[in-house]
Amino acid sequence: LKGMGSLFADTSESSGGQTTAAVAILEAGSDLIKGVARFVQKNNSTCIIEGTVDGLNPGKHALCIHECGDISQGCQSCGDVFHGLSQKLSEKPAGELGDIFAAETGRTEFRIETGQVKVWDIIGRSMLVHSLDTSQVHRNTPNDNRLVCGIIARSAGIFQNTKKICSC
Amino acid sequence: LKGMGSLFADTSESSGGQTTAAVAILEAGSDLIKGVARFVQKNNSTCIIEGTVDGLNPGKHALCIHECGDISQGCQSCGDVFHGLSQKLSEKPAGELGDIFAAETGRTEFRIETGQVKVWDIIGRSMLVHSLDTSQVHRNTPNDNRLVCGIIARSAGIFQNTKKICSC
Ligand SMILES: [Zn+2]
Ligand SMILES: [Zn+2]
Repeated sequence: LKGMGSLFADTSESSGGQTTAAVAILEAGSDLIKGVARFVQKNNSTCIIEGTVDGLNPGKHALCIHECGDISQGCQSCGDVFHGLSQKLSEKPAGELGDIFAAETGRTEFRIETGQVKVWDIIGRSMLVHSLDTSQVHRNTPNDNRLVCGIIARSAGIFQNTKKICSC
Repeated sequence: LKGMGSLFADTSESSGGQTTAAVAILEAGSDLIKGVARFVQKNNSTCIIEGTVDGLNPGKHALCIHECGDISQGCQSCGDVFHGLSQKLSEKPAGELGDIFAAETGRTEFRIETGQVKVWDIIGRSMLVHSLDTSQVHRNTPNDNRLVCGIIARSAGIFQNTKKICSC
């Protein structure tokens, strides 16, 4: 997978012993669409999210974090979009990361730096791609066209705790 | 799936707003073995874990929590057994939940009440079943015969926050 070499964790800034790296394999809910995303909490204010998705229809698609990681019924059991632990329901949901753009080939690569979410708050939740763009989802739409999703799982990270087999 | 009706969350005891229910679908790393486990943090000292696994060889198999939820390389990317956040490496790992027993049919159903782990500490990690029993795994064995695994994901729980679509 491309683009992962530029991910890094700033170990000079403490994360309080919390997990700072995660991975989501996006393949639940679809036979045709597959992707992967990697998450690194660079410091307390910046989460870097990089990924690739294949098999999308060309155009804009909302990329987001949903509350649950329960994919027992595909993307329908992932719950609502993640609103953030301290946000009011009337505010823009923290889990709305914006749109990704699929080329004519159906492929998209993305890199996001965001202060909306922190890795340790989204571990065990899900990353989800919709067929619609962000302006059209999560707003009283009974069917918000969930295409593909995956659980956000703790991963070993790249430059952390090399003494241990796994740093998560 | 059987046995889920008896799971419950004791909402009279505060969990500090943390997620108290989780689910792991056990299917990574194997084409033949499948299972599911549900986790409920009953109170601050007791985590109830119930599940079913099909397709095992008859006999004893170690059931455990491993550090990572990264199943990008099946059960090999799940890291070491989870040692607990405050345990010394010399102590019995918190993630060693004991053995499950498969019948001649290859099926096992289990229910564990444990104080070794708390749901909020294992979210985003993995549940794993070995071919060997607990006395034979995690102890300098380069190949510890990992059979099947799944990410422990936040789930909506059963009796919690019924006002919200998803309580995780
Ligand atoms: Zn969404
Ligand atoms: Zn193990």
